[in-house]
Amino acid sequence: MASATATIALDWGTTNARAWRLDGAGAALERRNGGRGISSVPEGGFPAALTELCGDWLAAAPQAPLVLVGMVGSRNGWVEAPYAPLPCGAADLAARLLRFGTHGRTALVVPGISGEAPSGGFDVMRGEETLALGSGVRDGLVCLPGSHSKWIAMRGGRITAFASFMTGEVFAALSRHTILGRLAEQPADPAGAGLGHAAARRPGGLLHKAFAARTGVLAGSMAGAQVEPFLSALLVAEEIAGARELFGEVGEVALVAEGALAEAYCAALAAAGIAVASLAPEACFVAGVANVLAARESDA
Amino acid sequence: MASATATIALDWGTTNARAWRLDGAGAALERRNGGRGISSVPEGGFPAALTELCGDWLAAAPQAPLVLVGMVGSRNGWVEAPYAPLPCGAADLAARLLRFGTHGRTALVVPGISGEAPSGGFDVMRGEETLALGSGVRDGLVCLPGSHSKWIAMRGGRITAFASFMTGEVFAALSRHTILGRLAEQPADPAGAGLGHAAARRPGGLLHKAFAARTGVLAGSMAGAQVEPFLSALLVAEEIAGARELFGEVGEVALVAEGALAEAYCAALAAAGIAVASLAPEACFVAGVANVLAARESDA
Repeated sequence: MASATATIALDWGTTNARAWRLDGAGAALERRNGGRGISSVPEGGFPAALTELCGDWLAAAPQAPLVLVGMVGSRNGWVEAPYAPLPCGAADLAARLLRFGTHGRTALVVPGISGEAPSGGFDVMRGEETLALGSGVRDGLVCLPGSHSKWIAMRGGRITAFASFMTGEVFAALSRHTILGRLAEQPADPAGAGLGHAAARRPGGLLHKAFAARTGVLAGSMAGAQVEPFLSALLVAEEIAGARELFGEVGEVALVAEGALAEAYCAALAAAGIAVASLAPEACFVAGVANVLAARESDA
Repeated sequence: MASATATIALDWGTTNARAWRLDGAGAALERRNGGRGISSVPEGGFPAALTELCGDWLAAAPQAPLVLVGMVGSRNGWVEAPYAPLPCGAADLAARLLRFGTHGRTALVVPGISGEAPSGGFDVMRGEETLALGSGVRDGLVCLPGSHSKWIAMRGGRITAFASFMTGEVFAALSRHTILGRLAEQPADPAGAGLGHAAARRPGGLLHKAFAARTGVLAGSMAGAQVEPFLSALLVAEEIAGARELFGEVGEVALVAEGALAEAYCAALAAAGIAVASLAPEACFVAGVANVLAARESDA
């Protein structure tokens, strides 16, 4: 029966939970988005939150394993799965799956990865490792934009290095809580992005270049509607420049993003002279889960 | 009579107003701090705000000129004084003083300066020009830390170039409105600053390096009490690195700051191998006002 649920997989992050019903070939049969990120789940509330999101799927497929990916496996999540070390491929994650019983079956928590970033600093991720291992990139760089963007280097199909950038969170803080936010007008004018890419090429560092929005509005060379796209583009360009410092000259990157975020990164990567292969996050997640499960089964 | 008020001068910024009573030699007789920055003054409310701050001084010295410095001369201030262009010395400001009548005398508004920053971007300041011209630096760099820090290049006693950095405002936004703020514990442990200076020397850019506080706390290599000093030191170091990109190799800088801000910048400048001459903001302001007034009188 092609439509029977073989696996129920969740990408359960800090602010959102997404659940997929997968068939025996690892293809997505159905997806649900829930607002119950781990930060909104009270202590002891994870079983109920899971039931709320996909209790009907669980009841209808009592044999299907439950795969949990992302911050749900962190210290503030449901059950803490210790980080896997670098280098790390699907088989390494499969060997470190954390198992616990819930809803009459075994839940499998995919661990995150920790290690030394190319900068020499310690770095961590939870969730992005599964998407990177489902990206199909064997050798190259994968970029996953977000609150804490990840750049992930793949070699021979394993993750060998990665680094985090606080781009999304810094954008939110600066666009809401500085003079730049007070100057910004809606609806946004996307032409501001080009001004941001141009500013990024100038010297002086981010703290200086961001001020160009304030002076630009004052001088009449930037419209209020251009401020937010300017700031977004400037920050994304800074992230790309930082990634180049860490990973060397980047010729092409696999970008795992959709919608406005994908557009913003495509434009910034193009402005930086980097070729982009765009990948859908959902496809990467589903393939990543399938790859980890397949690696587990081949071990068994 | 040595203690007679010869001038009443205000450094009237966005969030604070500071007033000085100066004698005929330009020495400070008395200072007052008021919380009535221009952002808290309603439309048409400047005469009353001035009376509130120093109406008694004005009444007692009906002949004393009133000198207004800072954002009070901006579009959102009392009377807008158009920016002076670069290069700009005390005589240039004196020639562009904006005069208007209030409280039975002539008020003199010192204009700010606008011009092309060494990055090629447009930049502005209001208030810092007066302190720089009172710093005693004829040839060299002056650094005035703050919400929007200014680095000012002096040549032959005139301001020839400058650049702004959003350091203080970005620190406030990131320390209050990101995960770094949620991790920070008080009272702060100043040892965190050393970790920030070390992180600043690594590659990867600010958006990557700031995340080291989050991973450091997670890994146990950084205490919560060290997060805020870490972030502050990292941002100041980024400002210094940006200033070096703009002004070339910096051997020594005149730092106009006091208290904790002066300490933070002294430590960051030392960590960057830059010699510091520390100057008190009050002395620079008072001397700057005296220099502008003297230039006016020598013109007359």
